[in-house]
Amino acid sequence: MSTPSEARRSQDSRLAILEAAFAEASEKGLHSTTIESIAARAGVGKQTIYRWWKSKAAVVLEALEEEAARPGRGASFPDTGDLRADLRTQMRGVVRAMRTPAFATYRGLIAAAQADPEIARAVNDVIIAPRVHACLDRLRRAQQVGQLDGDADLDLLVELLYGPLYYRLLLQTEPVSNAQVDAVLAAVLPA
Amino acid sequence: MSTPSEARRSQDSRLAILEAAFAEASEKGLHSTTIESIAARAGVGKQTIYRWWKSKAAVVLEALEEEAARPGRGASFPDTGDLRADLRTQMRGVVRAMRTPAFATYRGLIAAAQADPEIARAVNDVIIAPRVHACLDRLRRAQQVGQLDGDADLDLLVELLYGPLYYRLLLQTEPVSNAQVDAVLAAVLPA
Repeated sequence: MSTPSEARRSQDSRLAILEAAFAEASEKGLHSTTIESIAARAGVGKQTIYRWWKSKAAVVLEALEEEAARPGRGASFPDTGDLRADLRTQMRGVVRAMRTPAFATYRGLIAAAQADPEIARAVNDVIIAPRVHACLDRLRRAQQVGQLDGDADLDLLVELLYGPLYYRLLLQTEPVSNAQVDAVLAAVLPA
Repeated sequence: MSTPSEARRSQDSRLAILEAAFAEASEKGLHSTTIESIAARAGVGKQTIYRWWKSKAAVVLEALEEEAARPGRGASFPDTGDLRADLRTQMRGVVRAMRTPAFATYRGLIAAAQADPEIARAVNDVIIAPRVHACLDRLRRAQQVGQLDGDADLDLLVELLYGPLYYRLLLQTEPVSNAQVDAVLAAVLPA
Protein backbone atom coordinates (compact mmCIF):
# COMPACT_ATOMS: atom_id res chain seq x y z
CA MET A 1 0.00 0.00 0.00
CA SER A 2 1.25 3.48 -0.77
CA THR A 3 1.46 6.15 1.90
CA PRO A 4 -0.69 9.28 1.53
CA SER A 5 2.27 11.34 0.36
CA GLU A 6 3.25 8.67 -2.19
CA ALA A 7 -0.31 8.63 -3.47
CA ARG A 8 -0.29 12.41 -3.81
CA ARG A 9 3.04 12.39 -5.65
CA SER A 10 1.64 9.72 -7.93
CA GLN A 11 -1.47 11.82 -8.62
CA ASP A 12 0.70 14.90 -9.26
CA SER A 13 2.76 12.95 -11.82
CA ARG A 14 -0.37 11.71 -13.54
CA LEU A 15 -1.75 15.23 -13.90
CA ALA A 16 1.61 16.59 -15.06
CA ILE A 17 1.77 13.86 -17.72
CA LEU A 18 -1.76 14.55 -18.94
CA GLU A 19 -1.10 18.29 -19.15
CA ALA A 20 2.18 17.70 -20.96
CA ALA A 21 0.54 15.24 -23.38
CA PHE A 22 -2.21 17.70 -24.21
CA ALA A 23 0.25 20.57 -24.71
CA GLU A 24 2.63 18.48 -26.84
CA ALA A 25 -0.11 17.06 -29.06
CA SER A 26 -1.76 20.47 -29.44
CA GLU A 27 1.47 22.18 -30.41
CA LYS A 28 3.07 19.48 -32.57
CA GLY A 29 0.27 17.17 -33.59
CA LEU A 30 -0.04 13.55 -32.48
CA HIS A 31 2.33 12.42 -35.20
CA SER A 32 5.31 14.35 -33.85
CA THR A 33 4.46 13.80 -30.19
CA THR A 34 6.40 10.99 -28.53
CA ILE A 35 6.38 9.32 -25.14
CA GLU A 36 9.88 10.83 -24.75
CA SER A 37 8.70 14.38 -25.46
CA ILE A 38 5.75 14.01 -23.07
CA ALA A 39 8.03 12.62 -20.35
CA ALA A 40 10.55 15.42 -20.80
CA ARG A 41 7.87 18.09 -20.64
CA ALA A 42 6.22 16.53 -17.58
CA GLY A 43 9.57 16.07 -15.83
CA VAL A 44 9.10 12.33 -15.34
CA GLY A 45 10.78 9.22 -16.70
CA LYS A 46 9.33 7.27 -19.64
CA GLN A 47 8.70 4.31 -17.33
CA THR A 48 6.33 6.42 -15.25
CA ILE A 49 4.18 6.95 -18.33
CA TYR A 50 4.29 3.29 -19.36
CA ARG A 51 3.17 2.33 -15.85
CA TRP A 52 -0.26 3.86 -16.60
CA TRP A 53 -0.62 3.98 -20.38
CA LYS A 54 0.44 1.61 -23.10
CA SER A 55 0.89 4.08 -25.99
CA LYS A 56 1.13 7.77 -26.75
CA ALA A 57 -2.34 7.62 -28.30
CA ALA A 58 -3.76 6.28 -25.02
CA VAL A 59 -2.24 9.07 -22.91
CA VAL A 60 -3.18 11.80 -25.42
CA LEU A 61 -6.72 10.47 -25.60
CA GLU A 62 -7.07 10.58 -21.80
CA ALA A 63 -5.62 14.10 -21.82
CA LEU A 64 -8.19 15.11 -24.42
CA GLU A 65 -10.93 13.52 -22.34
CA GLU A 66 -9.88 15.56 -19.28
CA GLU A 67 -9.80 18.70 -21.41
CA ALA A 68 -13.18 17.95 -22.96
CA ALA A 69 -14.74 17.43 -19.53
CA ARG A 70 -13.75 20.90 -18.25
CA PRO A 71 -16.54 23.31 -17.35
CA GLY A 72 -18.02 24.83 -20.50
CA ARG A 73 -16.48 22.28 -22.86
CA GLY A 74 -18.58 19.24 -22.01
CA ALA A 75 -21.08 17.43 -24.18
CA SER A 76 -24.06 19.32 -22.79
CA PHE A 77 -26.38 20.92 -25.32
CA PRO A 78 -28.09 24.30 -24.91
CA ASP A 79 -31.88 24.20 -24.43
CA THR A 80 -33.62 27.58 -24.54
CA GLY A 81 -36.75 26.04 -26.04
CA ASP A 82 -35.82 27.25 -29.57
CA LEU A 83 -34.25 24.32 -31.46
CA ARG A 84 -32.89 26.36 -34.36
CA ALA A 85 -31.25 28.91 -32.07
CA ASP A 86 -29.80 26.17 -29.84
CA LEU A 87 -28.35 24.25 -32.79
CA ARG A 88 -26.86 27.47 -34.14
CA THR A 89 -25.25 28.22 -30.76
CA GLN A 90 -23.87 24.72 -30.39
CA MET A 91 -22.66 24.35 -34.00
CA ARG A 92 -21.00 27.78 -33.96
CA GLY A 93 -19.22 26.61 -30.83
CA VAL A 94 -18.02 23.56 -32.79
CA VAL A 95 -16.78 25.84 -35.59
CA ARG A 96 -14.94 27.98 -33.03
CA ALA A 97 -13.38 24.88 -31.45
CA MET A 98 -12.39 23.44 -34.85
CA ARG A 99 -10.44 26.62 -35.54
CA THR A 100 -8.37 26.46 -32.32
CA PRO A 101 -4.88 24.90 -32.25
CA ALA A 102 -6.02 22.47 -29.54
CA PHE A 103 -8.38 20.86 -32.04
CA ALA A 104 -5.36 19.54 -33.91
CA THR A 105 -5.07 16.96 -31.14
CA TYR A 106 -8.53 15.61 -31.89
CA ARG A 107 -7.80 15.67 -35.63
CA GLY A 108 -4.60 13.76 -34.98
CA LEU A 109 -6.56 11.11 -33.09
CA ILE A 110 -9.12 10.85 -35.91
CA ALA A 111 -6.18 10.45 -38.32
CA ALA A 112 -4.59 7.76 -36.14
CA ALA A 113 -7.97 6.03 -35.90
CA GLN A 114 -7.97 5.36 -39.66
CA ALA A 115 -5.36 2.64 -39.18
CA ASP A 116 -6.10 1.64 -35.58
CA PRO A 117 -9.53 0.26 -34.60
CA GLU A 118 -8.72 0.59 -30.90
CA ILE A 119 -8.13 4.34 -31.20
CA ALA A 120 -11.25 4.59 -33.36
CA ARG A 121 -13.31 2.92 -30.65
CA ALA A 122 -11.79 5.08 -27.91
CA VAL A 123 -12.38 8.33 -29.84
CA ASN A 124 -15.97 7.27 -30.38
CA ASP A 125 -16.57 6.30 -26.75
CA VAL A 126 -14.85 9.30 -25.21
CA ILE A 127 -15.55 12.16 -27.62
CA ILE A 128 -18.15 11.46 -30.28
CA ALA A 129 -20.81 9.28 -28.66
CA PRO A 130 -21.48 11.54 -25.64
CA ARG A 131 -21.93 14.54 -27.96
CA VAL A 132 -24.17 12.65 -30.39
CA HIS A 133 -26.31 11.49 -27.47
CA ALA A 134 -26.62 15.03 -26.11
CA CYS A 135 -27.68 16.23 -29.57
CA LEU A 136 -30.20 13.38 -29.96
CA ASP A 137 -31.66 14.25 -26.52
CA ARG A 138 -32.11 17.86 -27.63
CA LEU A 139 -33.73 16.76 -30.92
CA ARG A 140 -36.09 14.43 -29.03
CA ARG A 141 -37.22 17.30 -26.80
CA ALA A 142 -37.87 19.34 -29.96
CA GLN A 143 -40.03 16.47 -31.23
CA GLN A 144 -41.99 16.45 -27.97
CA VAL A 145 -42.90 20.14 -28.35
CA GLY A 146 -43.69 19.81 -32.07
CA GLN A 147 -40.62 21.66 -33.46
CA LEU A 148 -39.70 18.48 -35.35
CA ASP A 149 -42.02 15.88 -36.91
CA GLY A 150 -42.65 12.89 -34.68
CA ASP A 151 -41.32 10.56 -37.39
CA ALA A 152 -38.18 12.59 -38.25
CA ASP A 153 -35.06 10.41 -38.56
CA LEU A 154 -32.94 11.96 -35.81
CA ASP A 155 -29.80 9.86 -36.47
CA LEU A 156 -29.88 11.05 -40.08
CA LEU A 157 -30.40 14.63 -38.91
CA VAL A 158 -27.24 14.46 -36.77
CA GLU A 159 -25.24 13.29 -39.82
CA LEU A 160 -26.74 16.02 -42.03
CA LEU A 161 -25.92 18.70 -39.43
CA TYR A 162 -22.37 17.67 -38.53
CA GLY A 163 -21.30 15.74 -41.67
CA PRO A 164 -20.70 18.95 -43.67
CA LEU A 165 -18.53 20.39 -40.85
CA TYR A 166 -16.36 17.27 -40.63
CA TYR A 167 -16.23 17.07 -44.44
CA ARG A 168 -14.61 20.52 -44.60
CA LEU A 169 -12.43 19.90 -41.55
CA LEU A 170 -10.99 16.53 -42.60
CA LEU A 171 -10.95 16.86 -46.40
CA GLN A 172 -9.74 20.46 -46.00
CA THR A 173 -11.74 21.69 -48.95
CA GLU A 174 -12.27 25.03 -47.22
CA PRO A 175 -12.46 26.36 -43.64
CA VAL A 176 -15.55 25.67 -41.54
CA SER A 177 -17.51 28.86 -40.86
CA ASN A 178 -20.59 30.33 -39.23
CA ALA A 179 -21.97 30.94 -42.73
CA GLN A 180 -21.76 27.21 -43.40
CA VAL A 181 -23.61 26.48 -40.14
CA ASP A 182 -26.39 28.90 -41.07
CA ALA A 183 -26.71 27.44 -44.59
CA VAL A 184 -26.83 23.87 -43.26
CA LEU A 185 -29.50 24.79 -40.70
CA ALA A 186 -31.60 26.56 -43.34
CA ALA A 187 -31.41 23.51 -45.63
CA VAL A 188 -31.90 20.77 -43.05
CA LEU A 189 -34.39 22.07 -40.48
CA PRO A 190 -38.06 22.48 -41.41
CA ALA A 191 -38.97 26.15 -41.94
CA MET B 1 19.99 11.38 -73.55
CA SER B 2 18.69 7.90 -72.83
CA THR B 3 18.40 5.26 -75.54
CA PRO B 4 14.95 3.87 -76.41
CA SER B 5 15.59 0.67 -74.45
CA GLU B 6 16.78 2.64 -71.42
CA ALA B 7 13.68 4.79 -71.61
CA ARG B 8 11.50 1.67 -71.75
CA ARG B 9 13.28 0.12 -68.77
CA SER B 10 12.79 3.37 -66.93
CA GLN B 11 9.09 3.39 -67.75
CA ASP B 12 8.77 -0.26 -66.69
CA SER B 13 10.38 0.57 -63.33
CA ARG B 14 8.04 3.49 -62.82
CA LEU B 15 4.97 1.37 -63.45
CA ALA B 16 6.28 -1.44 -61.24
CA ILE B 17 6.86 1.07 -58.43
CA LEU B 18 3.38 2.56 -58.77
CA GLU B 19 1.76 -0.89 -58.75
CA ALA B 20 3.82 -1.94 -55.75
CA ALA B 21 3.00 1.29 -53.90
CA PHE B 22 -0.71 0.84 -54.51
CA ALA B 23 -0.63 -2.81 -53.42
CA GLU B 24 1.44 -2.11 -50.30
CA ALA B 25 -0.67 0.83 -49.17
CA SER B 26 -3.91 -1.06 -49.87
CA GLU B 27 -2.81 -4.11 -47.92
CA LYS B 28 -0.98 -2.47 -45.00
CA GLY B 29 -2.19 1.11 -44.89
CA LEU B 30 -0.03 4.13 -45.62
CA HIS B 31 1.29 4.14 -42.06
CA SER B 32 2.98 0.73 -42.37
CA THR B 33 4.06 1.21 -45.99
CA THR B 34 7.68 2.29 -46.41
CA ILE B 35 9.90 3.26 -49.31
CA GLU B 36 11.83 0.05 -48.49
CA SER B 37 8.75 -2.17 -48.73
CA ILE B 38 7.69 -0.55 -52.01
CA ALA B 39 11.19 -0.97 -53.44
CA ALA B 40 11.36 -4.63 -52.37
CA ARG B 41 7.97 -5.40 -53.89
CA ALA B 42 8.78 -3.59 -57.14
CA GLY B 43 12.19 -5.24 -57.39
CA VAL B 44 14.07 -1.93 -57.57
CA GLY B 45 16.50 -0.09 -55.31
CA LYS B 46 15.34 2.68 -52.95
CA GLN B 47 17.38 5.20 -54.95
CA THR B 48 15.26 4.47 -58.04
CA ILE B 49 12.18 5.58 -56.11
CA TYR B 50 13.86 8.67 -54.70
CA ARG B 51 14.88 9.66 -58.22
CA TRP B 52 11.21 10.35 -59.04
CA TRP B 53 9.42 10.91 -55.74
CA LYS B 54 10.44 12.66 -52.56
CA SER B 55 8.31 10.71 -50.05
CA LYS B 56 6.20 7.60 -49.70
CA ALA B 57 3.08 9.80 -49.61
CA ALA B 58 4.03 11.26 -53.00
CA VAL B 59 4.47 7.88 -54.67
CA VAL B 60 1.32 6.41 -53.07
CA LEU B 61 -0.67 9.45 -54.13
CA GLU B 62 0.48 9.09 -57.75
CA ALA B 63 -0.36 5.38 -57.58
CA LEU B 64 -3.83 6.26 -56.33
CA GLU B 65 -4.20 8.82 -59.11
CA GLU B 66 -3.35 6.15 -61.73
CA GLU B 67 -5.82 3.77 -60.13
CA ALA B 68 -8.54 6.42 -59.93
CA ALA B 69 -8.10 7.26 -63.62
CA ARG B 70 -8.75 3.68 -64.80
CA PRO B 71 -11.79 3.07 -66.98
CA GLY B 72 -14.95 3.01 -64.88
CA ARG B 73 -13.32 4.58 -61.82
CA GLY B 74 -12.89 8.13 -63.04
CA ALA B 75 -14.60 11.26 -61.85
CA SER B 76 -17.31 11.13 -64.52
CA PHE B 77 -20.88 11.38 -63.29
CA PRO B 78 -23.85 9.45 -64.73
CA ASP B 79 -26.42 11.53 -66.63
CA THR B 80 -29.58 9.67 -67.62
CA GLY B 81 -31.67 12.84 -67.27
CA ASP B 82 -33.00 11.76 -63.84
CA LEU B 83 -30.99 13.58 -61.15
CA ARG B 84 -32.20 11.51 -58.21
CA ALA B 85 -31.47 8.21 -59.99
CA ASP B 86 -28.04 9.43 -61.13
CA LEU B 87 -27.07 10.61 -57.64
CA ARG B 88 -28.24 7.28 -56.22
CA THR B 89 -26.12 5.38 -58.77
CA GLN B 90 -23.04 7.51 -58.15
CA MET B 91 -23.34 7.57 -54.33
CA ARG B 92 -23.96 3.82 -54.14
CA GLY B 93 -20.77 3.47 -56.17
CA VAL B 94 -18.98 5.57 -53.55
CA VAL B 95 -20.39 3.34 -50.78
CA ARG B 96 -19.18 0.25 -52.66
CA ALA B 97 -15.73 1.80 -53.13
CA MET B 98 -15.52 2.87 -49.47
CA ARG B 99 -16.07 -0.73 -48.45
CA THR B 100 -13.19 -2.12 -50.56
CA PRO B 101 -9.71 -2.73 -49.08
CA ALA B 102 -8.19 -0.42 -51.72
CA PHE B 103 -10.06 2.50 -50.16
CA ALA B 104 -7.82 2.19 -47.11
CA THR B 105 -5.12 3.85 -49.21
CA TYR B 106 -7.26 6.94 -49.72
CA ARG B 107 -8.20 6.94 -46.01
CA GLY B 108 -4.51 6.72 -45.15
CA LEU B 109 -3.82 9.76 -47.31
CA ILE B 110 -6.67 11.69 -45.70
CA ALA B 111 -5.20 10.73 -42.31
CA ALA B 112 -1.71 11.84 -43.36
CA ALA B 113 -3.19 15.08 -44.70
CA GLN B 114 -4.29 16.10 -41.17
CA ALA B 115 -0.69 16.89 -40.26
CA ASP B 116 0.71 17.67 -43.72
CA PRO B 117 -0.72 20.56 -45.78
CA GLU B 118 1.15 19.39 -48.89
CA ILE B 119 -0.58 16.00 -48.83
CA ALA B 120 -3.88 17.74 -48.11
CA ARG B 121 -3.45 19.92 -51.18
CA ALA B 122 -2.43 16.97 -53.36
CA VAL B 123 -5.39 14.83 -52.22
CA ASN B 124 -7.68 17.73 -52.97
CA ASP B 125 -6.20 18.41 -56.41
CA VAL B 126 -5.96 14.78 -57.51
CA ILE B 127 -8.96 13.08 -55.93
CA ILE B 128 -11.55 15.40 -54.42
CA ALA B 129 -11.72 18.46 -56.68
CA PRO B 130 -12.29 16.57 -59.98
CA ARG B 131 -15.15 14.61 -58.38
CA VAL B 132 -16.73 17.68 -56.81
CA HIS B 133 -16.56 19.45 -60.17
CA ALA B 134 -18.18 16.51 -61.96
CA CYS B 135 -20.96 16.51 -59.35
CA LEU B 136 -21.44 20.29 -59.65
CA ASP B 137 -21.67 19.95 -63.45
CA ARG B 138 -24.39 17.32 -63.04
CA LEU B 139 -26.27 19.51 -60.53
CA ARG B 140 -26.04 22.50 -62.90
CA ARG B 141 -27.56 20.46 -65.72
CA ALA B 142 -30.39 19.50 -63.33
CA GLN B 143 -30.93 23.19 -62.66
CA GLN B 144 -31.12 23.89 -66.40
CA VAL B 145 -33.95 21.37 -66.84
CA GLY B 146 -35.78 22.52 -63.70
CA GLN B 147 -35.05 19.48 -61.49
CA LEU B 148 -33.38 21.85 -59.01
CA ASP B 149 -34.29 25.46 -58.17
CA GLY B 150 -32.28 28.02 -60.10
CA ASP B 151 -31.08 29.57 -56.83
CA ALA B 152 -30.19 26.29 -55.07
CA ASP B 153 -26.80 26.45 -53.30
CA LEU B 154 -24.98 23.68 -55.19
CA ASP B 155 -21.78 23.80 -53.11
CA LEU B 156 -23.88 23.29 -49.99
CA LEU B 157 -25.74 20.46 -51.69
CA VAL B 158 -22.48 18.62 -52.39
CA GLU B 159 -21.53 18.88 -48.69
CA LEU B 160 -24.98 17.69 -47.58
CA LEU B 161 -24.82 14.70 -49.96
CA TYR B 162 -21.26 13.52 -49.28
CA GLY B 163 -20.64 14.93 -45.77
CA PRO B 164 -22.70 12.18 -44.09
CA LEU B 165 -20.77 9.46 -45.99
CA TYR B 166 -17.38 10.86 -44.97
CA TYR B 167 -18.66 11.42 -41.41
CA ARG B 168 -19.38 7.70 -41.06
CA LEU B 169 -16.23 6.66 -42.94
CA LEU B 170 -13.75 8.80 -41.00
CA LEU B 171 -15.37 8.97 -37.56
CA GLN B 172 -16.27 5.27 -37.89
CA THR B 173 -19.58 5.70 -36.12
CA GLU B 174 -21.11 2.99 -38.32
CA PRO B 175 -20.59 1.56 -41.82
CA VAL B 176 -21.69 3.56 -44.85
CA SER B 177 -24.62 1.88 -46.61
CA ASN B 178 -27.08 2.13 -49.48
CA ALA B 179 -29.80 2.78 -46.88
CA GLN B 180 -27.88 5.86 -45.73
CA VAL B 181 -27.59 7.07 -49.35
CA ASP B 182 -31.34 6.68 -49.87
CA ALA B 183 -32.15 8.48 -46.60
CA VAL B 184 -29.79 11.37 -47.44
CA LEU B 185 -31.28 11.74 -50.92
CA ALA B 186 -34.83 11.72 -49.54
CA ALA B 187 -33.91 14.42 -47.02
CA VAL B 188 -31.80 16.67 -49.22
CA LEU B 189 -33.37 16.63 -52.71
CA PRO B 190 -36.69 18.39 -53.32
CA ALA B 191 -39.59 15.88 -53.63
